[in-house]
Amino acid sequence: MTTAVKEPTKTAVMKALVYHGPGKRAWEDKPKAAVKDPTDAVVRITTSTICGTDLHIMKGDVPTVTDGRILGHEGVGLVESVGSSVQNFKVGDRVLVSCITSCGKCDYCKRGMFSHCRNGGWILGNLIDGTQAEYVRIPHADNSLYKAPEGVPEEALVMLSDIFPTGFECGVLNGTVKPGDKVAIVGSGPIGLAALLTAQFYSPALLILIDRDDNRLQVSRSFGATHTINYEKENVAERIQQLTGEGVDVAIEAVGVPSSIDTCQAIIAPGGHIANIGVHGKPVEFHLEKLWDRNITLTTRLVDTVTTPMLLKVLRSGKLDARKMGTHNFALSDVMKAYDTFGNAAKEKALKVVLKA
Amino acid sequence: MTTAVKEPTKTAVMKALVYHGPGKRAWEDKPKAAVKDPTDAVVRITTSTICGTDLHIMKGDVPTVTDGRILGHEGVGLVESVGSSVQNFKVGDRVLVSCITSCGKCDYCKRGMFSHCRNGGWILGNLIDGTQAEYVRIPHADNSLYKAPEGVPEEALVMLSDIFPTGFECGVLNGTVKPGDKVAIVGSGPIGLAALLTAQFYSPALLILIDRDDNRLQVSRSFGATHTINYEKENVAERIQQLTGEGVDVAIEAVGVPSSIDTCQAIIAPGGHIANIGVHGKPVEFHLEKLWDRNITLTTRLVDTVTTPMLLKVLRSGKLDARKMGTHNFALSDVMKAYDTFGNAAKEKALKVVLKA
Amino acid sequence: MTTAVKEPTKTAVMKALVYHGPGKRAWEDKPKAAVKDPTDAVVRITTSTICGTDLHIMKGDVPTVTDGRILGHEGVGLVESVGSSVQNFKVGDRVLVSCITSCGKCDYCKRGMFSHCRNGGWILGNLIDGTQAEYVRIPHADNSLYKAPEGVPEEALVMLSDIFPTGFECGVLNGTVKPGDKVAIVGSGPIGLAALLTAQFYSPALLILIDRDDNRLQVSRSFGATHTINYEKENVAERIQQLTGEGVDVAIEAVGVPSSIDTCQAIIAPGGHIANIGVHGKPVEFHLEKLWDRNITLTTRLVDTVTTPMLLKVLRSGKLDARKMGTHNFALSDVMKAYDTFGNAAKEKALKVVLKA
Amino acid sequence: MTTAVKEPTKTAVMKALVYHGPGKRAWEDKPKAAVKDPTDAVVRITTSTICGTDLHIMKGDVPTVTDGRILGHEGVGLVESVGSSVQNFKVGDRVLVSCITSCGKCDYCKRGMFSHCRNGGWILGNLIDGTQAEYVRIPHADNSLYKAPEGVPEEALVMLSDIFPTGFECGVLNGTVKPGDKVAIVGSGPIGLAALLTAQFYSPALLILIDRDDNRLQVSRSFGATHTINYEKENVAERIQQLTGEGVDVAIEAVGVPSSIDTCQAIIAPGGHIANIGVHGKPVEFHLEKLWDRNITLTTRLVDTVTTPMLLKVLRSGKLDARKMGTHNFALSDVMKAYDTFGNAAKEKALKVVLKA
Repeated sequence: MTTAVKEPTKTAVMKALVYHGPGKRAWEDKPKAAVKDPTDAVVRITTSTICGTDLHIMKGDVPTVTDGRILGHEGVGLVESVGSSVQNFKVGDRVLVSCITSCGKCDYCKRGMFSHCRNGGWILGNLIDGTQAEYVRIPHADNSLYKAPEGVPEEALVMLSDIFPTGFECGVLNGTVKPGDKVAIVGSGPIGLAALLTAQFYSPALLILIDRDDNRLQVSRSFGATHTINYEKENVAERIQQLTGEGVDVAIEAVGVPSSIDTCQAIIAPGGHIANIGVHGKPVEFHLEKLWDRNITLTTRLVDTVTTPMLLKVLRSGKLDARKMGTHNFALSDVMKAYDTFGNAAKEKALKVVLKA
Repeated sequence: MTTAVKEPTKTAVMKALVYHGPGKRAWEDKPKAAVKDPTDAVVRITTSTICGTDLHIMKGDVPTVTDGRILGHEGVGLVESVGSSVQNFKVGDRVLVSCITSCGKCDYCKRGMFSHCRNGGWILGNLIDGTQAEYVRIPHADNSLYKAPEGVPEEALVMLSDIFPTGFECGVLNGTVKPGDKVAIVGSGPIGLAALLTAQFYSPALLILIDRDDNRLQVSRSFGATHTINYEKENVAERIQQLTGEGVDVAIEAVGVPSSIDTCQAIIAPGGHIANIGVHGKPVEFHLEKLWDRNITLTTRLVDTVTTPMLLKVLRSGKLDARKMGTHNFALSDVMKAYDTFGNAAKEKALKVVLKA
Repeated sequence: MTTAVKEPTKTAVMKALVYHGPGKRAWEDKPKAAVKDPTDAVVRITTSTICGTDLHIMKGDVPTVTDGRILGHEGVGLVESVGSSVQNFKVGDRVLVSCITSCGKCDYCKRGMFSHCRNGGWILGNLIDGTQAEYVRIPHADNSLYKAPEGVPEEALVMLSDIFPTGFECGVLNGTVKPGDKVAIVGSGPIGLAALLTAQFYSPALLILIDRDDNRLQVSRSFGATHTINYEKENVAERIQQLTGEGVDVAIEAVGVPSSIDTCQAIIAPGGHIANIGVHGKPVEFHLEKLWDRNITLTTRLVDTVTTPMLLKVLRSGKLDARKMGTHNFALSDVMKAYDTFGNAAKEKALKVVLKA
Repeated sequence: MTTAVKEPTKTAVMKALVYHGPGKRAWEDKPKAAVKDPTDAVVRITTSTICGTDLHIMKGDVPTVTDGRILGHEGVGLVESVGSSVQNFKVGDRVLVSCITSCGKCDYCKRGMFSHCRNGGWILGNLIDGTQAEYVRIPHADNSLYKAPEGVPEEALVMLSDIFPTGFECGVLNGTVKPGDKVAIVGSGPIGLAALLTAQFYSPALLILIDRDDNRLQVSRSFGATHTINYEKENVAERIQQLTGEGVDVAIEAVGVPSSIDTCQAIIAPGGHIANIGVHGKPVEFHLEKLWDRNITLTTRLVDTVTTPMLLKVLRSGKLDARKMGTHNFALSDVMKAYDTFGNAAKEKALKVVLKA
């Protein structure tokens, strides 16, 4: 099953989106990605996208990303070459790249915590070069790539690199959404919307989206929200009380700021779950003086992508319309422009930008 | 099965420990407890005890408790009379009183959240008269009393009114202690020790008790702690790191102050559970900026006493030595003195004081 | 909340469908149902229906049902009177009658196994008079009735007395249907169809219905089956292999004959769940010689109706169209004719017959 | 971390226990085990043992085992050499060999069903050469070997190759043993005893061992059984009724014959779990006519060894005395004699025979 490959010669080059310090990026020549370890695969990117995290990197908020790094941790493509011990993939396979690299052999991977893989985790476009490029090297390919299901368009599939497993695992599964539940999601960006779509796998009764962007709230309704609240125009706690009586069973935080966690605490019913998805830069106040006796569960999680096989099955069955996350299309070579658009997402009414090679 | 009873005449009296505002209590005459509703039972108390919460009440910290209230929510006794629709108990049955009153018919009770029972919850010695008395009226007796298993001494059994279900449900179950786990418990008072004893139902590898009272830590070791840390003498985080490498799988808070929650956050391993038991009066800082990606679960809970049947089975099997929680014995009529002793628990080296009628 | 009621005088009568031994039934006068115990309620039936079990009773297959018994364990109606300790309901409330009577106070009820309630279980239309009558006495009313949600038609609601909790608990929950799963249901009678509809709460990828009645299979497709197999015309195991590769994740038995269990064993994938719903009269062969190492789970269950509150929430949210189960309508007073129609369900293309008072 | 190794020359030989068809085995020269694939490791066996399955093989009952195969799937040893992509181990490491080989990259491995690994499963001493030899090649070494914890004697550790994970996963975990439970184990051979010891991780109240060998029952009591029943001398169902009232919560089958499954069905309480461990050669009768409404769960499982890390933690903590499973000691070179002894286990009062190189 393993396919021996000739490695590209030293002079091979490729184009890539390269970070050069806060605010500086370029679409420029880089040495073409190549297999280094026997467990590596190289993927020729055919579809990629940009993540909110990439914008954070561009602001200089992610110190592990250094000058010269190719960005991007989402992508779909064709296997270009594989290392000698790769078993699951061969040259020419169409694959989904997971945002999380998993070795499959460390203690964390064996526990299903790929996010904390001792030989991987979130490294793509962070500690190693990423997917906003013509080619990308994927370490531990057998456990970090997934075969593309037939009949699924790449612009749908690429949404399973990161945002769908993130919304689903950190929000929906950690929040334990159940049939008939009352669910609120704070934040209707792509991750919040991914939580919204995947929460519907479990048939909740109420799905309330909370944001301040009326366009995003409108999109939320078209994506299945039963109610929306603009928190700059309405008192969230009062409105939730009207809608639910005693609060929501599940409150999902999909922003990453203290006020969103405050909202979750204000609207959670006894016995409820608060599931944090957002990336936080500051501590928050947790109201144990009110919540100590309310049987609350609060969870945090970096996506493990352990549910990617399940999500692929649902995607293939037609019960998840992932494609509608992509609002804007660009050629991969226009990624510089795509960053500009995505950087003004609210004004541009952008959810995800799709980059096609 | 229901037993009709003649209600006591109006002049019947009993002795009881009565709260008269902050700092004031008396062992005095009160009208003898009597059946009011068809679902009530009256229990003649044969064994009772004092809870840390009773001390909080005496300080005036629990505003729902008003002048004239009989205190106490723990007890064992004999059924003295039953209302017309009580089915599970008859006069003369030896019973355990649960600290939580459960109607068994509201939505919370049906979900196993007796703590939030719409017709009960923690009301004994709080909203209605309690168990530090010769007699006590127990509403919803069928769901709030338990038959005493044969062969179990009352001084062991009474510990199942509150501290064992509390330590077990809020600490051990919410913390999901598993065989081989590394567990830390912050606080070695009676509740922390109850968590310590019941955590051993699941065979953890490490059981580390953290406190500042060397006597309590010594007791902890004799109760099964594998290690103890005096946080006034040692750096907890460093010591935990030496013992565990990356932190504990489960951190149980059994004090109720912000610094204990800080400790839990400092020592928890990725993927770990922080289970709060303590009663908190202030908000705490939750370090989402560090924990957002560490796959942490934080839980709060008021004891539901849903595990009382399980605990009774374990107690009867001899695998739980609840008796050793009782360090000091008093006659029920000496409850005033017992309060003094329990109020100086550290100096008196007291865990629980046992009151026998 | 409790409402004192004047008991009806002795001479009050009502009409009811009465069993008089195998093959014999009559719509005749009976004493009007009345409160006997303080926990009882009497319900005036406004909508009822007939269950396959009632047909079994009429054949003499259920020896616990004796001459003179009023049949029926499904119904919706108005509370006519309540006993002195009923708390959740008052005269005039519109209610759903659960097919399972639960006392809420015995060990089984506390474990959520209402089916094995020591003071209830399936007794309506079996050990005590049932719901195919103008009035019915419901013991332990607080735990055996449910408030009708506003805006839900009674012909939808009545399907939650039995068939929906049965299909959901015994089939879908015990089978652990998950998003993306491959699910087969053997038998497309009302119970199989209830499993089909409620399985969709969890977004399986494949939902394959297996029966020999082409009309029922056609109905299955209109109810959401992704595939159907007529086992008299096709080889089930081969077809399942084509559709699934290695078999189904969940196989639900909704008939009650050995051959259906054989089918489940033949089509189950390694790691799969076989969930029995059917009422069986004979032992079956379990192929441990093939299945011992395939990590299979086989479950049995009498419906507990613990999920009725959840189902009511889903019903009210509009995500469950229970109404379409009712294919034929009769006046309650025409229940004799309704039995004839339901007794020829295949020929009449009947699912459930709805009886309206 | 990967260590390049020189492969042994062709002439290298080793001694091994070789199967030569039913009833025929020899301790003879074989080519020394060598790394073939980059994911392989070769282990020099220092401790091994014999399994009941090896005796079945010797009878010709396992057709996948062919003439010339080295037997054995349990062992402890020192890493002798590793393939180029092995990361977790280096030459000289002391390791436990798992009876199940797991690639860590196929769909079954990702679901935790290593038993059904598409590139492994139970292959050692079956489809490839095994551990009753001086050296053994272990494919997918990173996921199929475990580092030996310090301070644990090899004769204890070797019991974690197979019998402890088997008794624990197939019996205790699948049976969902809980604190206070009533548990029966049918069969007190090594696997039944492993279930007995690991069931105690969860503090059941009753642990009843059922066998016909009084010596084994005596051993069971010394290993923690609270009661034993010799089924040739006592009526099992009656005795269980006396001990439990309504039957056991968990019945574990550890023999592999229809009559043991019959016993489990006869003694299981409503809501109970029957967990099969035994290897069965015939179908069994499953009494659905009695059990359809008793809320029973029946499970089968080939050991996945997913709990080996947990068991290692418990072993290291001192809470599992695995060593006492070894009743007889032999030099590895005396394995022919060891087979004779283990083949007469009842007469020899043997549990496991320990083979030391």
